[in-house]
Order: sequence, then C-alpha cells, then structure tokens
Amino acid sequence: MKRLVVIAALVGALPALAEEGMWTYNNFPSAKVKQQYGFEPSQQWLDKVRLSSARLAGGCSASFVSANGLVMTNHHCARGCIEQLSTGEKDYIANGFYAKTQADETQCPAMEVNQLSEIVDVTERLNTATQGLTGKPYNDTLKAEMSKIEKECATSAQVRCDVVTLYQGGRYNLYKYRRFQDVRLVFAPEHAIAFFGGDPDNFEFPRYDLDVTFLRVYQDGKPAPTEHHFKWSRAGVKEGELTFISGHPGRTSRGLTVAELEYQRDVAMPRQLLLMAEMRGVLTEFQKRGPEQKRISSNMLFGVENALKANKGRLEALRDKQFFAQKVAAEQELRQKVEASPELKKKYGAAWDEIAKAQEQLKHVRKELGYIEQGFGFSSQLYNIAKALVRAADELPKENSKRLREFNEANQPAFKAQLFSPAPIYPEFEITRLEFSLTKLREELGPDHPFVKKVLGKESPLTMATRLVNGTQLRDVKARQALFAGGKKAIEASQDPMIRLAALVDPDGRAVRKNFEENIDSVIRKNSELVAKAKFEVYGTNVYPDATFSLRLSYGSVKGYMEDGKKVAPITTMAGTYERHTGEDPFALPKTWLDTQGKLKLNTPMNFASNNDIIGGNSGSPVINKNAEIVGLVFDGNIQSLGGEFGFDESVNRAVSVHSEAIIEALQKVYGATRVLDELRPSKQPSVKAKPAG
Amino acid sequence: MKRLVVIAALVGALPALAEEGMWTYNNFPSAKVKQQYGFEPSQQWLDKVRLSSARLAGGCSASFVSANGLVMTNHHCARGCIEQLSTGEKDYIANGFYAKTQADETQCPAMEVNQLSEIVDVTERLNTATQGLTGKPYNDTLKAEMSKIEKECATSAQVRCDVVTLYQGGRYNLYKYRRFQDVRLVFAPEHAIAFFGGDPDNFEFPRYDLDVTFLRVYQDGKPAPTEHHFKWSRAGVKEGELTFISGHPGRTSRGLTVAELEYQRDVAMPRQLLLMAEMRGVLTEFQKRGPEQKRISSNMLFGVENALKANKGRLEALRDKQFFAQKVAAEQELRQKVEASPELKKKYGAAWDEIAKAQEQLKHVRKELGYIEQGFGFSSQLYNIAKALVRAADELPKENSKRLREFNEANQPAFKAQLFSPAPIYPEFEITRLEFSLTKLREELGPDHPFVKKVLGKESPLTMATRLVNGTQLRDVKARQALFAGGKKAIEASQDPMIRLAALVDPDGRAVRKNFEENIDSVIRKNSELVAKAKFEVYGTNVYPDATFSLRLSYGSVKGYMEDGKKVAPITTMAGTYERHTGEDPFALPKTWLDTQGKLKLNTPMNFASNNDIIGGNSGSPVINKNAEIVGLVFDGNIQSLGGEFGFDESVNRAVSVHSEAIIEALQKVYGATRVLDELRPSKQPSVKAKPAG
Repeated sequence: MKRLVVIAALVGALPALAEEGMWTYNNFPSAKVKQQYGFEPSQQWLDKVRLSSARLAGGCSASFVSANGLVMTNHHCARGCIEQLSTGEKDYIANGFYAKTQADETQCPAMEVNQLSEIVDVTERLNTATQGLTGKPYNDTLKAEMSKIEKECATSAQVRCDVVTLYQGGRYNLYKYRRFQDVRLVFAPEHAIAFFGGDPDNFEFPRYDLDVTFLRVYQDGKPAPTEHHFKWSRAGVKEGELTFISGHPGRTSRGLTVAELEYQRDVAMPRQLLLMAEMRGVLTEFQKRGPEQKRISSNMLFGVENALKANKGRLEALRDKQFFAQKVAAEQELRQKVEASPELKKKYGAAWDEIAKAQEQLKHVRKELGYIEQGFGFSSQLYNIAKALVRAADELPKENSKRLREFNEANQPAFKAQLFSPAPIYPEFEITRLEFSLTKLREELGPDHPFVKKVLGKESPLTMATRLVNGTQLRDVKARQALFAGGKKAIEASQDPMIRLAALVDPDGRAVRKNFEENIDSVIRKNSELVAKAKFEVYGTNVYPDATFSLRLSYGSVKGYMEDGKKVAPITTMAGTYERHTGEDPFALPKTWLDTQGKLKLNTPMNFASNNDIIGGNSGSPVINKNAEIVGLVFDGNIQSLGGEFGFDESVNRAVSVHSEAIIEALQKVYGATRVLDELRPSKQPSVKAKPAG
Repeated sequence: MKRLVVIAALVGALPALAEEGMWTYNNFPSAKVKQQYGFEPSQQWLDKVRLSSARLAGGCSASFVSANGLVMTNHHCARGCIEQLSTGEKDYIANGFYAKTQADETQCPAMEVNQLSEIVDVTERLNTATQGLTGKPYNDTLKAEMSKIEKECATSAQVRCDVVTLYQGGRYNLYKYRRFQDVRLVFAPEHAIAFFGGDPDNFEFPRYDLDVTFLRVYQDGKPAPTEHHFKWSRAGVKEGELTFISGHPGRTSRGLTVAELEYQRDVAMPRQLLLMAEMRGVLTEFQKRGPEQKRISSNMLFGVENALKANKGRLEALRDKQFFAQKVAAEQELRQKVEASPELKKKYGAAWDEIAKAQEQLKHVRKELGYIEQGFGFSSQLYNIAKALVRAADELPKENSKRLREFNEANQPAFKAQLFSPAPIYPEFEITRLEFSLTKLREELGPDHPFVKKVLGKESPLTMATRLVNGTQLRDVKARQALFAGGKKAIEASQDPMIRLAALVDPDGRAVRKNFEENIDSVIRKNSELVAKAKFEVYGTNVYPDATFSLRLSYGSVKGYMEDGKKVAPITTMAGTYERHTGEDPFALPKTWLDTQGKLKLNTPMNFASNNDIIGGNSGSPVINKNAEIVGLVFDGNIQSLGGEFGFDESVNRAVSVHSEAIIEALQKVYGATRVLDELRPSKQPSVKAKPAG
C-alpha cells in the first residue's frame, strides 16, 4: 500500500521536520539549511531567486531563463495555450511547436506571467480595520480593506497586487507582481513525450517525461528584458545534492482544524471525486466521436484525470486512521494548552467549536452554493462569459471596495484578458459540458427544487444546452465587447439566450453566496485567524504557512525512497524512456524520438526525484542548485506526495522533475532547437552540433 | 438533509423495533403482528403466501397472480428480457409489449423463476461436518457439504436447491425451489411510464410510475398450472391499512462487525462508486452515438445509475457519525457481555479481532481479486462466456464436491441457460465495455504489474478489446455448444482469441481466489458464525437474519413521513402523473397515456409508501393485505430507505409500490389489455369496458 506511514509535523503546531516546508521568502530558515547542508542562502541570493521565479496566473509556476524574457515551464502548464493555437490542420499538441525565428513566436490567447517584485506585511493594517468585528461587518470590512490595499498598490496594468492570507489569517501579506500579459509560445515538444505514460504513469515514479515548454514574455511588442533570470547548470545534479525549488504551491491544508478536515474527508472530497469520475467517463467517450473532438477535449480530459488521481491520493491520506488520529491528537494538545491559560482561553478557546459549527452549516448550503453560484451547474465557457458580463454591468459602476472581490480594480487586467480572449470555443463540446452540468444540477438539487424548475422549465438539459449554445452570440469577441461597453442597459436589452440565463441565475447566485460569505465563511475566517494566533503564541512563529498559490521556497536533495520493501533509485535515464515504449498510446514515443534514438546519449539523466516539499501549483518550478543554476524542472510529485496536502512524509514524499541534461539533449539532438539552446547557454554559442552517440 | 436520524435496532443484537425485519417464513413474529395490528398470520396463511411468491433468479421478486402461471413483477426486473427481445425495428422498451393471444407470448432468452416449496434447517449437519476445523479445511469441508446437500436435494432440473447462510453463519437452511426456465413475456408498458421521472425520480417519493410487467411460466410448452397464487384485492389499500410484503431482499449488512462496516465505508464502497460514476459517464455519452447504440446500452445504464444512487445513499448512512457510533456502542456492549463470562469468552472472545485482521488482509488483495478474478478487469459478456467455457472444461470432470461452487451439479441448469442464451450480444458495445475495464485493470493494478503486462503486452486496451471482440466466435451459440461439448481438448485446441485470453487469465484468477477463500473469507465466515452464536446466546433467537436474496416476509402499513419539516402524504394519484409531464425525457409520458387522459379516473391511487422493511431485491414483490390479496407491487424504496442496508429507521424508511388500482385502470383504459385483466380478476369476466371518465 502506497500511503503515509510516517506522519509529518503539522503546520504551525510543531517545528518543521528536516526538508519540510513551503517557506515564504520573508521567513526562510536559512540557518537550518546551513546546519543540514552547509550552505546558507543570503538575502541577496533569496532576492535573486525570487526575481528569477515566475508564476503563470492560470495555476502554475515557471522561471525566467534568459535575459530576453525566455520563460520555462511545463508542457502541461502551457497546454491550454498550445491547444488554443492549434487547429485540426495544425495540431501542435500532437506535433509539437518550435518557433524557428522570433517572428514565429505566437501569442497565447489568455496567459499571464507574474514576477514577484515585493512582499509587504499588512497584518496590522487589516487587524486594526477589523478589530472587534464579526459576521457581516467583519467580512465587509476585511474585503473592503483588502481591495483598498490592492488598489493603492496596483498603479498600472503592469502591476498586479494580491493581499495573501497566510497562516489561515494569522498574517496578511501584500504580494506585488510585475505582470506580463503578452506571452508567446516558443517551443513545445509533442504531447506524447511531454506526457509519456499518460494517466497510468501520472503521479508515479520512476518516470520518463519531457514535460517542458518555453514561452517568452513581451513588452510593447518586443521581448521583455529580464535582468533577473536563472543560468543553466553545466553539471546538472546528482544523487544526494542539495536542491531548492522556487515556485507557487497551490494549496495545502495542513493547518486546518479537525472539523474542517472531516468535512473534506466525509463530504466535499467524495462528492467532487464522483463528479470528476463521471465527467471523465463522458470525456473519454466524447473523444471517440472523431479526431477533432478528441483534439478539442484533450486538455480538459487531462485536467480532469489529473485532478481525479490527485484527489484520490489526498483522500486516501485523510482516510488513513493513524494519520488522522495524529491530527486529532495535535489539535487536542493545542486546545489543552489554550484551556490551561485563562488569558489564551478567553481569546482563543471558542474558535475550534465555532469553526465546527460553521462546517455543519456548510453541509446544508454546499450544494446550492456549488451548483448555483460556483459553476458546477453551468460548466460552460460561454456561460462563464455571460455571467461575467451580467455581473460586470452591476459591479463595475460600484465603488471599488463595494464590489464582489473578483471585480476589483486590481483584478481588471486579468479579468478583461480572460473575457476578451480570442481562444476558440467549440459549440459541440460546449453543449456536452453544459448538458452534463445541468443534469448534475437537477440531480443534486432535485427536479422539484424551485431554482431547478425556474432554470430548466420544461426543457431537458440537452434541449436547453443546445438552444443556448447554438443561440448565443458570445463566441464572437466583438459581441462581448459591445455588451461590456453597453453596461447594464445593453445587458437588460440583450436577447442573447446565454445572457438571459445568466441574468436569471444572478439573484439566486448572489443570495447563496451572500449567505455563505456572511454567515459561514466569515466565521471560519475569523476563527481561523484566532487558531493561527493561538498557535503562534503557543509554538512561536518559526513555522511556514499553508500553501496559497504564492511564491515559496523549499529545500532538499536528490533522493530515492523505499516502496513495497524495494529501493526506488532517484534518477532515470533516457534509455529507460525507450524501454517503456510500446508503440501504443500513452506509451508510444513520437516519431522524432524514434528517429533520433541512435544519436542520443542514452545514459543522460531523464527525470529525478527529490525530497523537496512541494504540491500542485509547483508544476513548472525551477529546481536550482546552491549557485542558483537550473538543474531541473518540477513537473510532478510521486503518488505518496499526494497526501502532502495534509502533512509531509519525508520518507516517501518526492518531487519529480525533468533533469536539466535531458532538456539540453532533447533540444539539441531531437528537435534541433538551437535558438532556445543558445539562449539557455549563451556562453556555449554556437550550439554543439548533433553527433552520433557512442 | 435526508438521512438516518433515528437509529434502528441492530440485527441480532436487540429486539426488532415495530415493523422492523425481513423475516424468514420459519421464524415469523405472528404474535407481534397480532399485538400491533390485531391480525395473526396462521401457518396456513404463511404457507399460502410463500407458495404464491416467486423469485426471478436474476435478482428480483415476483408473484403468481393466476392459476395459469401468470407472474407479476416490475418492468425494471424484466427489462433485460424486453431489451433482448427487441430490435431496432421492434423496440418493446420504447413502445411496450402486449401479447394479444397466448401464441404471441414470447420466451425470454435467459430468465428463471423460482417458487419456494420447502425450507429445511441443515445447521446441525454443517456444524458437525466442520467441527474443530479452521482455514482451508474448514472452507473445503463447508463447501463440499453444502454441495452434497444441494445435490441430494436437486432431484431434477425442475428442482433448485440452495443452502442459505443465515445470521452470518449462525444458521444454515436448505431452500428448495420449484424451478421454471421457460418464462414468456405477456405484457409490458412503455419504459417512459414504467420509469417515469427516470434517474432524477429514482428512489424518490412522491412518485408516479407504472413499473409493472406480466410474465408467464410455462411447462412442457404450455402455461404451467399454479394452484397457489394471489387474488386481486377489490378494494386496494388505504392509508393506515396493514400491508405484508413477501419477497427476496438481496442483501443487508446490519449484522456486520464494525471492522467490516469500516472496510465498506472507507475502502470498498468509495472505490465502487467511483468506478460506477465513470462508467455512467461512458454510457451516457455512448448513447449519443445513435438510436441503436442508445437502445442496446439502456439496460446497463439503468443498472449503473440505479446502483450508483443506491450506493451513495448507503454510504451516506455509514458516514453518519451518530449512526456509526451506535454501531460501535452495540458491538462494545456485546463484547463486554462475552468478556464477562469465562465460558462465552473462551468460545467467542477472539472472533471480532479475527474478523478485523482478515479485513486488513483483504485491503491488500482486493484489487487483484476484483480485477483479475471477479470480473472488474474484463467486463464483457463474451469474456464471461469464454471464462465459463474454460473453467467448465476443468471443473465439470471433477467430483461434484471438489468443484468451484458455481459449477456444482445443482447449479447446472441455471449455468447452461446462461451460457447458451440466444440473447443478442452487440460487438460495438462489447468493445466499449471491455476497453473501459481493461483500462481500469491497468489503472488499478498499475501498468508495471506482472499480470497487466502479461495480459496487455504491448497492446492498448482499445486495440486489444477490438481484436478480441471482432475475432471471437462466441457470439454464436453453436460455437459455445461445440466448445462445451469438446471439453478440455477443445478448449486447448481453440484459437478463439477470447478463449485464449480466458485461459491466460485462469491460473492467476484461481490463485487470487484460492488465497482469498482459504485465508480471508474462511476466517470471516468462521468467526462470523461465532459472533452470530454469541448474539443468540446473549440476546436470544427471536431475531431476523440479514437479507440473503431468500424469501422473506415484512409487515407494516401505508404511512407517510416527515421530510424537511413537511408531511409527505403516502398515496399519489394518476392526476399527479399528468402534472409531472413536461414532454421531455424522463418526464415525458408516452402517447398512449396522453391519448387516454380523458378516459382515466384521475383520482385513482398511483403509487404509495408503506413502512415495510425492504431492500433491493424486493423489487417486484407483491404487497398484500391480511386476506393475502394483491394491493400493490413494490418497485422502490424512498431515498431514506437506502440506509436500510445498515439499520431500519421506521420514521422515514419507506417501501414504494404501484397501487393495485393503478394497474387495473391502466391495463383497462390505457392498454385495453383484457386478456391480462380477465386473468387477474376472473370473477369480473368479461372485463369492464372502457368508458369516458366523469
């Protein structure tokens, strides 16, 4: 059984174990690293690494790897763009992409790259603003103050500012980013090698993938100068060597209370999994309709399968009785310490029960919240566009701090890029998705629920989905622009059926959201803040916060592990890639690889495992050595890492990366991508010519 | 929230609550019924009801309703047959079926009806045989003695004998049935009214379905005389009136130990649900390929959706913390009583821990057992046929008691009916199912599992499924007969690819099964016997056993319940059926109903709820009054009844039935099915003519 056997420390409860932690850049344990690895990252080193790191706003990590805006990330992080740029005739997912000249670099329809330029602690300011408040006033004030801070900070569209909630509210930090919205595709290998082994090998190790893509950020139509960037290591990395990973872990839940974990384990995650499993079945079979249908649905299928496998692993960790018992014990210990001090008890004693009560309430509203407001009932790009337009017409005229949070001034650049993205939308696929989600809406709320009756009327989900998708004009970006510009009047006058649906749903969506935010979420937030503060008071602040898709640094080394009594070696080779080839998808290598097998140095390291503490969102993160040179590219975690959402188990939890040498070898000998190579290793110009392997 | 709020008594632990219990005919609490309802069923009454009840061997209940072999069951119980008799041109699922003359009654390809003629207690004989044994010897001996008993009893193909394990092994009873294998379709309404409301309304109440089908058992090519049968009630049934349900509940798990329940809750059920959810997605989308694909996959989709919804409800009950805590408390109480007595402790004290250990072991083998041996990896009718042929060649030459249990002499009539069934098999659908299950095999065991490598080789699941299904001859019944007749030699010589696959899998399948039976299942069986005996000694024998798809009798009355603070009335009317019509599937009434709306007495009771304790397998059971007259036809339970697998909650658990008056009204005025009507109510001949409703 692959699962957590040694239990990790708990965020904010006990000191972190060696290698544990996704540390913020303003609280990195450099001394601890020195103690263990003999190298102490300096402030200068940390600043350089921070500024050379990048975030893909859609949910991934990346890095700057040249002075001319070249960005390295995973293929699976860029595949939305690669698919959007493809057509039935020019299928870059199947065949890969390489811009032979700069002019061939093609803009991604809706991609945003962020570079973290500054972190400012705003805890005091927010605490002062919300002092003494609870419920709706607490929620409104917190939201308004956050918006205010972000607006003050975001002085142009090139600046992005997010107030990040850390330690469940124990700290609030303002993260200020340089924002790039003109991002172009430079190089991508074929999907078959980027995701070699497909879903069966996903989250597994040993592994043999070239999950890499290069992008370039532009400014004013030219490659953006990126002074801060990582150099490429000449030596790569070997077993036992120190590795840092700088990236954006999306979410961990190590600091949640037992009540919150139980809710995840018993209510939220099982339902999510069932929904995803069914959707996977629909997508798998939709792909059989034909090659074009396969092409246009592959990205979503990848996303669903990836999430499904990840969430199965996470849930397995929570269902591990021994693991969960330790979570319970840790909470009990903290609560006893709080109870033992009259002062602490008065401030924090009630927080856990308040959170538990809110979780109970959440059970009663979660279906309506999810299906009416959060998109489960209307899974359609066109619906999302309609909803954005309908709400924008109401929200944008309001004062900034009174808006729904996603309509804040600070969010406008991202919002508009998304709304006016020229990425293609495929009606056949939209109908399938919308029919599916309307069916789930009816199933989960029940056919007699007033909202379901109001929305479906006498139509079946298929009839309605077909009517809406075929009748709407929203595939046309100009139609969106006109409605956006026309504001409330244009929305009210519009006969577009998708706009009318979004307008019909809007009041119900706002109502369930309002109830959730004011009566449940605000209670959880407020009391989570208290729990976090109690932890600080009891255990100190030398701890890392849960992941929040903000920049973090982790450390560790290239290291194998034991599985089913056998040692798993930490590094695979290119030879292993060929051994795994069967000729049948997903174990079929692309023709370029079969044709060049003879030229490759087959003992080149392909992928490697390291005990850095990472999680989903870290995909695309650079792996660097102590000289801040690229030695790898994170693309996955092993199956044991999935429980990392709830606790870190150093004995088996591993990050999985493409080795820097494999990237060079492939760019050079398989793809002849000399433009990229020369930029990665400028000192080596001109690039080494391909030669037959010995 | 719809879920168990009041906790039921636990099988064999405490005396049953009022209305609780699926009682065996040899231990029915007549006195208790008298006490509560003033009517005491006599032995004669019980015998008559038992002999008028019927079982569909495929997994449903039924009843004899005329002296000429007329059998009433649910449409959803007969829909396998109805689909098998249909073609693209003559679609009886869509259009219904009515044999206007006896000559039009059409034989179902593989249906078996059983009538319970005798129950004999064989506990002593089996206990004596297995005395002092454990592990493999226990298992072998128990199995051999059961086979021997069954063979002695089954004196002809018209006699079916099953040794039934009751009270988890506390009792063994021999159930002797009269077996009918020539079963013909007489009448079925359209699917649209039989399953009106479809999956959204399934397991819901109020309800408006005409889920009825009439079959007829034949003997020697003529309608079989059935002296014992139910008469039709003239008055139907009203709120508050006493109702009995005589049928075959399939499985309850009320007597399981906590370790077994935890295994179900945390391991088995979540995985099953995910598999079914994904399969549902595949099937839903497969149906979009075209009307013929929709037709041939509908029965399976119904089965999957039905099981999915049922299992979600069951799992929700187990995840109810309060409910589960009571299960734990009840077990602790029993164990304490056992521990308190040196004698009991010696005999039974270790049983619970032994079961818990076996459950732990099961976790490690469950995937291999399920995917290699129990069919999850090879979900295909053609594969099942191949496996049956391959194993029959090995098993049938063995002495009866040494065979795998399903190859016993006593099982041969059913086995052959299944194996040589002329029911159509559709290659396109087979490929889809087989590809899906091979993909799951690879996913669950992993692509590097030796068995997966051996089976798939370098083929993808799709390539392999296509090659096997298109290459096999097993769709042809004659090919099966030849291989069966040719025995081991014919199997070994066969180049049929499906036979070769089954032969390749066979040793692995036997090995995992042997390990499971000898080291896990036998431990659970043996120790469950001990737990059952401990319960008898502590609490007495005035209890009912868990359901085992053997004939049971439950009692109760027509009764509403409270849901979300509102009273749900127990009886719906035909008028409600029309009100629920939207014109769109699954809320579209068939044309026959729309055309005859004006003729119907719209206040005729349509469906009703009663607090009888039933569960899946009871579908098709007759609901009778104290005169043993038909007043309804069970077709469902409400959503709250799903937790009934683990405990009965009288306050909300309801059986849902078609009212006898609705059946008469529809047969008469919608379908003009006078042949059936006259047979159901012989005294009323000739049937009442249809007349316009007032």
